[in-house]
Amino acid sequence: MSRFLLDYIHQHQAGWKQQPQILADERFQDCILLVFGQPRTAVFAHLDSIGFTVRYGRQLVRIGGPRAEAGYRLVGQDSQGEIDCTLTIDEETGELGYAFHRDIDRGTELTFYCDFRETDTSVQSCYLDNRLGVWSALQLCQTLEHGIVAFSCWEEHGGGSVAYLAKYIYETYGVRQALISDITWVTEGVHPGQGCVISLRDSLIPRRAYVDRIRAIAAASGIPFQLEVEGSGGSDAKELQHGPQPWDWCFVGAPEDHVHSPDELVDKRDIASMVALYRVLMQEL
Amino acid sequence: MSRFLLDYIHQHQAGWKQQPQILADERFQDCILLVFGQPRTAVFAHLDSIGFTVRYGRQLVRIGGPRAEAGYRLVGQDSQGEIDCTLTIDEETGELGYAFHRDIDRGTELTFYCDFRETDTSVQSCYLDNRLGVWSALQLCQTLEHGIVAFSCWEEHGGGSVAYLAKYIYETYGVRQALISDITWVTEGVHPGQGCVISLRDSLIPRRAYVDRIRAIAAASGIPFQLEVEGSGGSDAKELQHGPQPWDWCFVGAPEDHVHSPDELVDKRDIASMVALYRVLMQEL
Amino acid sequence: MSRFLLDYIHQHQAGWKQQPQILADERFQDCILLVFGQPRTAVFAHLDSIGFTVRYGRQLVRIGGPRAEAGYRLVGQDSQGEIDCTLTIDEETGELGYAFHRDIDRGTELTFYCDFRETDTSVQSCYLDNRLGVWSALQLCQTLEHGIVAFSCWEEHGGGSVAYLAKYIYETYGVRQALISDITWVTEGVHPGQGCVISLRDSLIPRRAYVDRIRAIAAASGIPFQLEVEGSGGSDAKELQHGPQPWDWCFVGAPEDHVHSPDELVDKRDIASMVALYRVLMQEL
Repeated sequence: MSRFLLDYIHQHQAGWKQQPQILADERFQDCILLVFGQPRTAVFAHLDSIGFTVRYGRQLVRIGGPRAEAGYRLVGQDSQGEIDCTLTIDEETGELGYAFHRDIDRGTELTFYCDFRETDTSVQSCYLDNRLGVWSALQLCQTLEHGIVAFSCWEEHGGGSVAYLAKYIYETYGVRQALISDITWVTEGVHPGQGCVISLRDSLIPRRAYVDRIRAIAAASGIPFQLEVEGSGGSDAKELQHGPQPWDWCFVGAPEDHVHSPDELVDKRDIASMVALYRVLMQEL
Repeated sequence: MSRFLLDYIHQHQAGWKQQPQILADERFQDCILLVFGQPRTAVFAHLDSIGFTVRYGRQLVRIGGPRAEAGYRLVGQDSQGEIDCTLTIDEETGELGYAFHRDIDRGTELTFYCDFRETDTSVQSCYLDNRLGVWSALQLCQTLEHGIVAFSCWEEHGGGSVAYLAKYIYETYGVRQALISDITWVTEGVHPGQGCVISLRDSLIPRRAYVDRIRAIAAASGIPFQLEVEGSGGSDAKELQHGPQPWDWCFVGAPEDHVHSPDELVDKRDIASMVALYRVLMQEL
Repeated sequence: MSRFLLDYIHQHQAGWKQQPQILADERFQDCILLVFGQPRTAVFAHLDSIGFTVRYGRQLVRIGGPRAEAGYRLVGQDSQGEIDCTLTIDEETGELGYAFHRDIDRGTELTFYCDFRETDTSVQSCYLDNRLGVWSALQLCQTLEHGIVAFSCWEEHGGGSVAYLAKYIYETYGVRQALISDITWVTEGVHPGQGCVISLRDSLIPRRAYVDRIRAIAAASGIPFQLEVEGSGGSDAKELQHGPQPWDWCFVGAPEDHVHSPDELVDKRDIASMVALYRVLMQEL
């Protein structure tokens, strides 16, 4: 993912309004930082995915919190070549496994097979969380003059990169305003097609003064958006909240249905709203 | 709370023995640091409260771990004005909600209605945890010559400010001794009226060498105190324990009954013990 | 433990190939850092143990996750002298307690009585996790030319020292490669006698590029080893993963049976493999 993204950036940056400084070396492991102009705000979009690790026998262990249904098609590769197998669930124990014509190497990572479906009104695929957050951040790069775009790792299994990205950004640029470019949930209060979500809380609660500024900018922009209030869930913001810098953060992202399954579904109006909202927020924050 | 406290400090500091340096700017978000003389030890008292967030329909989501009983009176304000409503609990689902004559804006924060009750021997109110820890720290300020008093945020929902306060204090003043000025629980082993609690452990275990020094100072002072041993619970100390500075810390605070309810109850003898204990500890540590 | 280890180091270091710098002062609380030559990689071995804290009445609270069976022999000392008592479990409530001829001081720490059993092929005792990880690291010290050995604290109850050790090591020496010298579990996929474990994951997942290098070095060495894949469990690596430095880490340690009991059992072949593997890894990483 990191190499793919670096290639994409190198191919497309000539068309961007402002050339960013690209930071992608061992200090940042597999993460990438793009620094545009004189930044005041940083966007965090995680590159990693949920999935499964092959354990012993034909057992699987979850990476993050993927939905598991018997029959899901899983892909990967090991020392013996390409893998295209099927998820199994033991009816008695609930234990996850795979069906394949051969054993798979211990420790091999498997991901959902990608069945990308696009209509006039929606996009459906595995991993819209968070390929779409990454894509939206790349749209932002086209016109961004001042700001940082940080592509992070390991959000789906507990984090571990935002801590050092946040430290580097704060200490180098004095930036301590963040937007989390990630995908959230369609719920009884958040509906497809009604706009990008500004999250007022999940398991964590962002600082009200900052969220109020974001809400005011969004309201003045005329771009449709929705407000989310959840008691659970988390994002890259966890590491900003708990790290030793005084970050303000807010989750801003389109909602999806069929979360963490091969069939994640997002309404194109919410994608358009997300891209538009990031443009105006990065100008005015 | 932060503005109220700053006003209080500005009004009262003239009567304090030593004038502190007051740090309260964007580097510290809504926190306040008071630095007296040549500090060796820092007191942490959290400013925040438990409560509820309005979700969708008439649902509520907890902020931290408030006790919930149908009929509790909750207050707040939203775009339409003042709110004074009643907590409801769905008998089947256990879901929290509110009863009010109108809908409340999504994301509005509600807190317990304050019914402050004082007798000759006790104080009873919501939010003694941690208004009382804050009040006790302010009593300490009257006579404190050398030390730091740090008013922190968000302790009740996972923390997020002590990490940067701890880093700033350690790097600026070399201080790495802490006392947690917070309120704990009346239990089968901790009784009202028998003095302020020195906690030997909760879910975390403080470093024994430091706690032994505190116990020795307390014992020599003649001030009544009690020892607590718990397997669960936490405090601002979590961030000190897990942060990248070698902090020694100990929880020292009065016990309360009816924890996290509108009826938190503290014995005045334990308050007196808490104030007295902090005075001697901050001199001798 | 810290004093014992410092004494051991001072007695034995004359026979070591390279004299390390010994860092053991208040900046590191009860931890010890040994710095050999020009380090590229740091080994972390935790010094602490699971056990029990005396609560109220004759109750006990766990320190970390010790196995508890009625009749286990527990030892310690308090203000009245030496303690040698027996673990009890309330049949109805499951509550832990102790049987002894007198009350034990509140807050006293009790540990398993040590019944060390050695045969030609195995070692059995309480606390092989992590005395054996410490012992193996000390064997490594005999021949280590370039590297850091860090003896850490509090791994068994949530950590709190690796965060500052990691920061100090990274900022002082630029080292960000780690090996976790700790003991893991015999399972359906990890068998006694088949070699030291290289863990591909537990609740956390190490960075694949780094683990692949370790696997390649191990394979080329001819030393027997096993690969572990778990979905739960953790180690000092948690603090490396979540701290604000870009650490690569991997758990490398012998497996034991009867985990966290007085009867932890390790095969000597796996100990030999562990010592040999650390020697080659510290040379080649």
